[in-house]
Amino acid sequence: MALIVQKFGGTSVGDIERIRNVARRVVATKEEGNQVVVCVSAMAGETNNLDALAREMCGEAHPEPREFDALVSTGEQKTIALLAMAIKLLGHEARSFTGAQMGMKTDSSHTRARIQSIDSEGLRSHLDRGSICVIAGFQGVDSEGSITTLGRGGSDTSAVAVAAALEADVCEIYTDVDGVYTADPRVAEHARKLDRISFEEMLELASLGAKVLQTRSVKFAMRYGVPIHVRSSFGSDEGTWMVPEEDVMERLVVSGVTCNVNEAKIRVSNVPDQPGIAVRLFTPLGEAGIVVDMIVQNFASDGTTDMTFTVPRSDFSRALDIAMKVGEELQSALVEGDDAIAKVSIVGLGMKDHAGVATKMFQVLADENINIQMIGTSEIKISVVIEEDSADAAVRALHAALVDDAASG
Amino acid sequence: MALIVQKFGGTSVGDIERIRNVARRVVATKEEGNQVVVCVSAMAGETNNLDALAREMCGEAHPEPREFDALVSTGEQKTIALLAMAIKLLGHEARSFTGAQMGMKTDSSHTRARIQSIDSEGLRSHLDRGSICVIAGFQGVDSEGSITTLGRGGSDTSAVAVAAALEADVCEIYTDVDGVYTADPRVAEHARKLDRISFEEMLELASLGAKVLQTRSVKFAMRYGVPIHVRSSFGSDEGTWMVPEEDVMERLVVSGVTCNVNEAKIRVSNVPDQPGIAVRLFTPLGEAGIVVDMIVQNFASDGTTDMTFTVPRSDFSRALDIAMKVGEELQSALVEGDDAIAKVSIVGLGMKDHAGVATKMFQVLADENINIQMIGTSEIKISVVIEEDSADAAVRALHAALVDDAASG
Repeated sequence: MALIVQKFGGTSVGDIERIRNVARRVVATKEEGNQVVVCVSAMAGETNNLDALAREMCGEAHPEPREFDALVSTGEQKTIALLAMAIKLLGHEARSFTGAQMGMKTDSSHTRARIQSIDSEGLRSHLDRGSICVIAGFQGVDSEGSITTLGRGGSDTSAVAVAAALEADVCEIYTDVDGVYTADPRVAEHARKLDRISFEEMLELASLGAKVLQTRSVKFAMRYGVPIHVRSSFGSDEGTWMVPEEDVMERLVVSGVTCNVNEAKIRVSNVPDQPGIAVRLFTPLGEAGIVVDMIVQNFASDGTTDMTFTVPRSDFSRALDIAMKVGEELQSALVEGDDAIAKVSIVGLGMKDHAGVATKMFQVLADENINIQMIGTSEIKISVVIEEDSADAAVRALHAALVDDAASG
Repeated sequence: MALIVQKFGGTSVGDIERIRNVARRVVATKEEGNQVVVCVSAMAGETNNLDALAREMCGEAHPEPREFDALVSTGEQKTIALLAMAIKLLGHEARSFTGAQMGMKTDSSHTRARIQSIDSEGLRSHLDRGSICVIAGFQGVDSEGSITTLGRGGSDTSAVAVAAALEADVCEIYTDVDGVYTADPRVAEHARKLDRISFEEMLELASLGAKVLQTRSVKFAMRYGVPIHVRSSFGSDEGTWMVPEEDVMERLVVSGVTCNVNEAKIRVSNVPDQPGIAVRLFTPLGEAGIVVDMIVQNFASDGTTDMTFTVPRSDFSRALDIAMKVGEELQSALVEGDDAIAKVSIVGLGMKDHAGVATKMFQVLADENINIQMIGTSEIKISVVIEEDSADAAVRALHAALVDDAASG
């Protein structure tokens, strides 16, 4: 008997008939002799409707975060109640759990709370009594009993965190794709599904913009060693298993090529080189809640320095204003921004052992006549910033040269 | 400084603009120097929508009661979050409380839970810090942490129970009428608003079908001595105060005439008179969850007996089936039902001291040529069952003879 956590997103529970389908799937897993916890999001569109109500109420003002969480958390509560009803109608015991009821304790950072602990005893005792536990994703409760939410997409994190707390055998993430691909199949025609991928690779892919899983949920899975199985809501084929590095048998040099077009670039040029420039630039950005991704610093021979960095495109104009102001204080000759960029990355565990992957990447892009604006690297990843218009060509060329060729060679 | 509990129903919070109006009213009360707790229902239509979702899921089957409560309780949760946001926007501190968060402990009778206790410390500490507490009516939590609901209209009970627990100075019930009337003004043109009414009278009126307040909430108010002020959501005039009997200065003989057309009558005739007939008849009705209201038993000279009783009209056909079956066992000559009846009642504290009120009531009805089918009495009430078509005429005649005349005489 295995303990399986299954997570279904908003589209999978988008209406009553779809919730019934999820119930059938859950019951089938139960009838195979497993204990089942099922974690669900709000019905598709529900969170947006609640958000719209808050905006109608508050207009330009920011809704009080505690009350915003109390409002939007009703979305998942509806789903868990309806799904528990549906499972009951199929003749199985089921019980819904809100974030508070399942003991999902978080800090008090409303709308983006962090999980602190899970009192999983309640869930466990109901599982042991044969119930299917239906839990609300996305939500928790703080030490004062206030409802919190983990931020959009937090349901993945809820599912993985509960799987970790219950020491589940697997956390199955159901999506509208059938697994993790070596590249976006709509861009690179030879992109193929990976049977297995390491947490480390998935973490890089997730943070680079692959939409399968939230970064935070992958971190949780990695830290607690929860095996994740990403699979399709529509079929019963195996998807992609996410496992510890040592369990990945096929150590591809490059296991994925991804593209992120949600960032913008800002350059602060010709600043007199002196200690503390980075601090003066990035402190006000941090205070404004703007997350800086890549940072590159160049020294010019005239004793000045250039600082280039990327921010989420949605924060571009705010970030540029701040950079202009700081640039003036630092006597920068030029502060400029560009939001028509793409960050293209290659990720692969094998890069740890293989020299020359970076060189090959740069050569492929040069052959395509694509200019590289920034470069960033980690142990198992190389990212380049290029102009947005060349993004698809870059992904295609890199996939053909580094994934396809490697597999066939 | 007074502590005031205000309760607004679903129509008063039916959309964002109406919630803003409630916020203004609440804030005005706060700015007069009072501590304020505001208890709200789900936005008009919301509970029906949630109910429809459950029915779409379950079809003919009965939705699992625990999950039904989890589902419908999201309605009030939406309202409290939105109202708290609205109050914040007016510059006042506000904090929403679900049933669980406000410590509204109930038994586990889902969909019709009874309040057991209220841990009001949380509310009190936030009141003392200057917050306006926005609480969800209708919902509570049982000892296992499951969400419960008090049944339709339970928001009145929530408000009164919280007022009792906090020893509030008054519980204001906002409605679409401006108080309690001596009769339905649409039926009896001289019906007038009462400035004060005793709990006892209101209890009879509420249970007799006057729609202002739920019976259970009046019982709570009476038991804990919570003064209730029923007033209009639309104006600022005084409405009707509900107070202990000794505080009612004007002891009207008849303070109200009400009419209930939601019952049906069943008669089981010519049963051989023997002990235990009532038990055999009413036990299966009780087991079927059917609440019997009036019961009248007549003995015939031939040694048989007739049993006539009323049930809610919505349970009529089920009740008749049960009565038929029992009637057969009891060798009844005839079991018959009638759902075209009305129960017309007169209520008044003064009836305790005045003889002859009943006689006068029967005379008035006889003068109108209205036949009385059943009679029931209590210390401060007389009810008669008549045919439904004569209901309005009966109310008009009784009001004119027993309320108007008495007031002018």
